[in-house]
Amino acid sequence: MADKSQKMLARLPRGFVDRHADDIRAVELMMGRIKAVYELYGFEPADQPLIEYTDALGKFLPDQDRPNEGVFSFQDDDEQWLSLRYDLTAPMARFVAENYDRLPKPFRSYRAGWVFRNEKPGPGRFRQFMQFDADTVGTPGVAADAEMAMMMADVMEALGIARGDYVIRVNNRKVLDGVLEAIGLGGDDNAGRRLTVLRAIDKLDKVGPEGVRDLLGKGRLDESGDFTKGAGLTAEQADKVLLLTTASDSDPAVKLQAMRAAVSGSARGEEGVQELADIGAMVAAAGYDDGRVKIDPSVVRGLEYYTGPVYEAELLAEIPNDEGKIVRFGSVGGGGRYDGLVSRFRGEPVPATGFSIGVSRLMTALKNLGKLDTSDVVAPVVVLVMDRDTESLGRYQKMVSDLRRAGIRAEMYLGGAGMKAQLKYADRRGSPVAVIQGGNEREAGQVQLKDLIEGARQAAAIADHAEYKEARPGQATVAEADLVAEVRKILDAQAAERGRG
Amino acid sequence: MADKSQKMLARLPRGFVDRHADDIRAVELMMGRIKAVYELYGFEPADQPLIEYTDALGKFLPDQDRPNEGVFSFQDDDEQWLSLRYDLTAPMARFVAENYDRLPKPFRSYRAGWVFRNEKPGPGRFRQFMQFDADTVGTPGVAADAEMAMMMADVMEALGIARGDYVIRVNNRKVLDGVLEAIGLGGDDNAGRRLTVLRAIDKLDKVGPEGVRDLLGKGRLDESGDFTKGAGLTAEQADKVLLLTTASDSDPAVKLQAMRAAVSGSARGEEGVQELADIGAMVAAAGYDDGRVKIDPSVVRGLEYYTGPVYEAELLAEIPNDEGKIVRFGSVGGGGRYDGLVSRFRGEPVPATGFSIGVSRLMTALKNLGKLDTSDVVAPVVVLVMDRDTESLGRYQKMVSDLRRAGIRAEMYLGGAGMKAQLKYADRRGSPVAVIQGGNEREAGQVQLKDLIEGARQAAAIADHAEYKEARPGQATVAEADLVAEVRKILDAQAAERGRG
Repeated sequence: MADKSQKMLARLPRGFVDRHADDIRAVELMMGRIKAVYELYGFEPADQPLIEYTDALGKFLPDQDRPNEGVFSFQDDDEQWLSLRYDLTAPMARFVAENYDRLPKPFRSYRAGWVFRNEKPGPGRFRQFMQFDADTVGTPGVAADAEMAMMMADVMEALGIARGDYVIRVNNRKVLDGVLEAIGLGGDDNAGRRLTVLRAIDKLDKVGPEGVRDLLGKGRLDESGDFTKGAGLTAEQADKVLLLTTASDSDPAVKLQAMRAAVSGSARGEEGVQELADIGAMVAAAGYDDGRVKIDPSVVRGLEYYTGPVYEAELLAEIPNDEGKIVRFGSVGGGGRYDGLVSRFRGEPVPATGFSIGVSRLMTALKNLGKLDTSDVVAPVVVLVMDRDTESLGRYQKMVSDLRRAGIRAEMYLGGAGMKAQLKYADRRGSPVAVIQGGNEREAGQVQLKDLIEGARQAAAIADHAEYKEARPGQATVAEADLVAEVRKILDAQAAERGRG
Repeated sequence: MADKSQKMLARLPRGFVDRHADDIRAVELMMGRIKAVYELYGFEPADQPLIEYTDALGKFLPDQDRPNEGVFSFQDDDEQWLSLRYDLTAPMARFVAENYDRLPKPFRSYRAGWVFRNEKPGPGRFRQFMQFDADTVGTPGVAADAEMAMMMADVMEALGIARGDYVIRVNNRKVLDGVLEAIGLGGDDNAGRRLTVLRAIDKLDKVGPEGVRDLLGKGRLDESGDFTKGAGLTAEQADKVLLLTTASDSDPAVKLQAMRAAVSGSARGEEGVQELADIGAMVAAAGYDDGRVKIDPSVVRGLEYYTGPVYEAELLAEIPNDEGKIVRFGSVGGGGRYDGLVSRFRGEPVPATGFSIGVSRLMTALKNLGKLDTSDVVAPVVVLVMDRDTESLGRYQKMVSDLRRAGIRAEMYLGGAGMKAQLKYADRRGSPVAVIQGGNEREAGQVQLKDLIEGARQAAAIADHAEYKEARPGQATVAEADLVAEVRKILDAQAAERGRG
């Protein structure tokens, strides 16, 4: 065995995290609820591997000019480049293209899994994270987009988020493109400036309309003194763009009118506004226009592959963040139409639309809202080990077997420590009950049961050490034959107590 | 959009697979049952990322002499090497070492996840596969190993595998090492020959005792004419090794006696036999010596990091494989004690033991045994789209919303096809019911319901086309207001039929 001087450093690579029991349970609970909605809508589970040919993934990460930037890549033994997926959409597109003829169309599927970004990690910014997506491939009709928006609303409600505490915002890339075209920013030459304009619009929430105007013009000095260079639009150009963003909160008809004005002269823009009008009508027909789903021309969404409607789920609830500060939580998921992603494999149009939920982010929000209670998971009863001969171990083993057969989580203490440390272990595990049998109890055919929850409460109430020893809170001696029944009684009492609390 | 000439090839990298709905559902069902056993034993969920520093993973893959062979590796931007994990144990060891002081000890955890092997793929041999592990870290006592073996047995039974159709075999690396030491194959110089001997023992199942003898000696010619070079042991040395393997099926006391003889002269070997004796006694005390858990000196297990007891879960049931041939399925999981894996980070002994289930392999076995029935998952009711104006789409949308609100999986057909193709789509989806409303039905406030399951059966029974058209099997016209109730009736009748079938 290595001595201390040569030992290796146990360390997690930057941007990766270990997940603990509470979070894993909370995520499972949450994902079960999301899955139930996807299933109810008729989507089927599907799953692609985490590794794809690099070229099949494409270069759709935001702000990535160089190939492979942002993705983890490596060469296979035949020299072909492989990459870890950076989202679930690109692999899904590869799968659908590869199996197109044998799939029912539209192909409606959902999938959850880890995705990877080879980026500089930061607070809340990880290099591995989980997404939970739903996609409909093979239909150009915006009814599919309307359905996605409504399904996102149903997901929010299935997770216990009150109506009014969230909104699904819908926009259309064609409208944004149309405005850019209308102000003369079409064509390949202007790709960089278009991106700057889209980023400016995306900041409406943070910097307000005047901030956006600065970012569309010469630039903006923020509070920290940093200057962000603007898109260099004229006042007239900026006005047209702002027409969109300021149309955000008015009556739907007025909003659509403002959007039509902003895109006037661009056929693509006008098509986009008409699609939004159709989505709005379908959402209204299904009754989701009560604030659950809103047309909002300020929604941009980052990924470069979107070609039509885009949508975003936003939590409006004000939630304490990890520092206890109350913040508006913001986006927990979104998506849009990506008509080019499957097509590029097929050489024929294969329209598609879908959305993605950021699992960790949504889980954090729900936990902070108190919507993911996993306190019904009870830690195991611990059977202490007082004698270590094989026969005694067999007896303790039988006790845990009996408890487990009755459906009670239980374990025999497996370490080498003495009784006091064993009780400390049971405490750290959050065990509800400790079972103790030394030589005396064994001879009498008895076991001692310690109610660790009640015991801790009573102990807290008893100030005096002598009095504590006298009271021996939460402790009882029972017949060994009644072990399971007596443990069950304590667990039931604890459950009733939790229900009241 | 790309034209056909430039389109990209949609292809999965070698050794990776897409998973389909049936398999995903079967795996979920199976993993839920395994998880319930782990939880009952008091293990807690834990999770590590898929990427670790290469040096933290170590070089424990079987037969890997060169660094990074067998693992997918890439350099981080700070030039450090990262790798995709090749199992769940090495990352778990890193996690425990990094967080040792704040964890309860023993630390008992379970985890499921994808692991990767950068190897040549073959039939049933993938480069990404899923494992489901449980581990106890921080105790040298073989009670922890006995518990692992018994828990594996409980997992098999929770999965519906009948007692007698599986066995958990337990051996000890110290015994194998002891035999090798006793025949003069100790020391670093003999590492290669030791490996050849272990591989020979591992083949007992396939080649029988005489085959093993050949492999221990000069070598063996198999049926295909391939010659495998042997370990070059003398007849006397080979006899000692064979003492072990032939002791496999006898009475426990006799078996232990034969093992003692085989290791005589090696303190390490004798320690190993004593540990097996202790495990045997504990397994017997808990009643698992009824064929569920057996001491078996022929168990080797591949991974180089095992240091003590090793165990393997084997399905004895004869199962049709994918070609319909009846085969004894063999190993579905295993593990052992790996006292060095955490220690190398800590510079102090941190004993540990655990096992791993190969998820896909076990799922295949259970499906072939008929133990993973997911037929209770009903495909969605499909509401056909007869008119495509926004108002009609709104009406169809309301029908699916009403069905979903009643908890019935439903979807509106979102493609562009006509009625016949829509019914074909519903068939391909396996839909139980199609809902149809054209102009006439709408005016009359009615909908047509097609029972697609009953319809298909009746259609199969009706030979004549004219007769078929007359009968219109499984079709009924009902009031639109009764849509949900009438669909429910059909679904209930289908469920009752499935129950009878």
